[in-house]
Amino acid sequence: MQIITEDIDTAELARRRALYGPLTEAVRELIDATIRTEVDDDVVRQVHADIAAATAKLRARQLDGAYGARKTTAGEHMSWGNAAMGLRNAIAPPLVVKADADGRRWAEFTLGAAYEGPPGLVHGGVCALVLDHVLGATASSVTFSFTGTLTLRYRRGTPLGLLRAEARVDRVEGRKTIVVGTLSDAGGVTVEAEGNFISPAV
Amino acid sequence: MQIITEDIDTAELARRRALYGPLTEAVRELIDATIRTEVDDDVVRQVHADIAAATAKLRARQLDGAYGARKTTAGEHMSWGNAAMGLRNAIAPPLVVKADADGRRWAEFTLGAAYEGPPGLVHGGVCALVLDHVLGATASSVTFSFTGTLTLRYRRGTPLGLLRAEARVDRVEGRKTIVVGTLSDAGGVTVEAEGNFISPAV
Repeated sequence: MQIITEDIDTAELARRRALYGPLTEAVRELIDATIRTEVDDDVVRQVHADIAAATAKLRARQLDGAYGARKTTAGEHMSWGNAAMGLRNAIAPPLVVKADADGRRWAEFTLGAAYEGPPGLVHGGVCALVLDHVLGATASSVTFSFTGTLTLRYRRGTPLGLLRAEARVDRVEGRKTIVVGTLSDAGGVTVEAEGNFISPAV
Repeated sequence: MQIITEDIDTAELARRRALYGPLTEAVRELIDATIRTEVDDDVVRQVHADIAAATAKLRARQLDGAYGARKTTAGEHMSWGNAAMGLRNAIAPPLVVKADADGRRWAEFTLGAAYEGPPGLVHGGVCALVLDHVLGATASSVTFSFTGTLTLRYRRGTPLGLLRAEARVDRVEGRKTIVVGTLSDAGGVTVEAEGNFISPAV
């Protein structure tokens, strides 16, 4: 896997976080407002023009393709384009995966209108996205791995709002790491997941 | 499932599509540009302010919560907030699921920088989102269904770019509809999926 090294120090990394994090958060708010707005047509058209102008400013100089995987010379990871955790990706909730002392991984996050499937519920595929990511991060805490298989059991609808995903390594079999996890709301587990993650042959 | 009925005719529906579709497409472009931009900091800050102002205009009048499921009095579905297919949801690629004469469902779509996981590849969880949606739409062509279980087998990385998802009903067992499908690029299948979809008890 190709990882680009950014020749920047920790202070510069912090400066970039403070610049791009709030921009991305503003775009997340815009996504939500685009779904929920009920303003008059002329305002919608005016906002459309405003957004197109903002995009043109950003595109004046840009990467040729996707963001890719980057790290600093000090080894700090910058998965800023990632669809689940990316600091610069407004599609990402974003997930921040934390580790407990016993190795369990978890993330707490809020999913709003942009993640809806059935009315008032998280899209089943978004539940899958979140669980793939948290289980994958758990597997990669053992060794860097790609998803091999992922099985999801939907016990009930997952309401939009504050949610928690957690995962733990169940067992390691050669190049396979088997991880189990859950997605929950305040009332308990809504989706169970088991993933079989495979580390690339060296 | 609560479905809101919008008292609008086909002409008004078309007018709203023409208003909101391009707005959402502009927001999709902005998401991409936010990830890929390399412009100077002062431009990023200016764009941030522009976007916050645009969002404030849209929020001047808005729905209290998420978009929900809507249809017109003539029965046309408006899943415009949906995370996978929503006309007003900039997170959605959006997927447009089509039906072949033999009942097979498929969607062709392009995934760019906003859907990245490993460098140059679609996030495994986004593959899951797409497959859940296309398999679910296939199951719901038999009878309205929620995802019960979903199993994904990742055969290789899915490159960003033009992709195709397809699915067919394998069998129906009482309230369960078993659907199988694939995600493919020009080189063949990248992910296989099997879903067990359950129609709510009446």
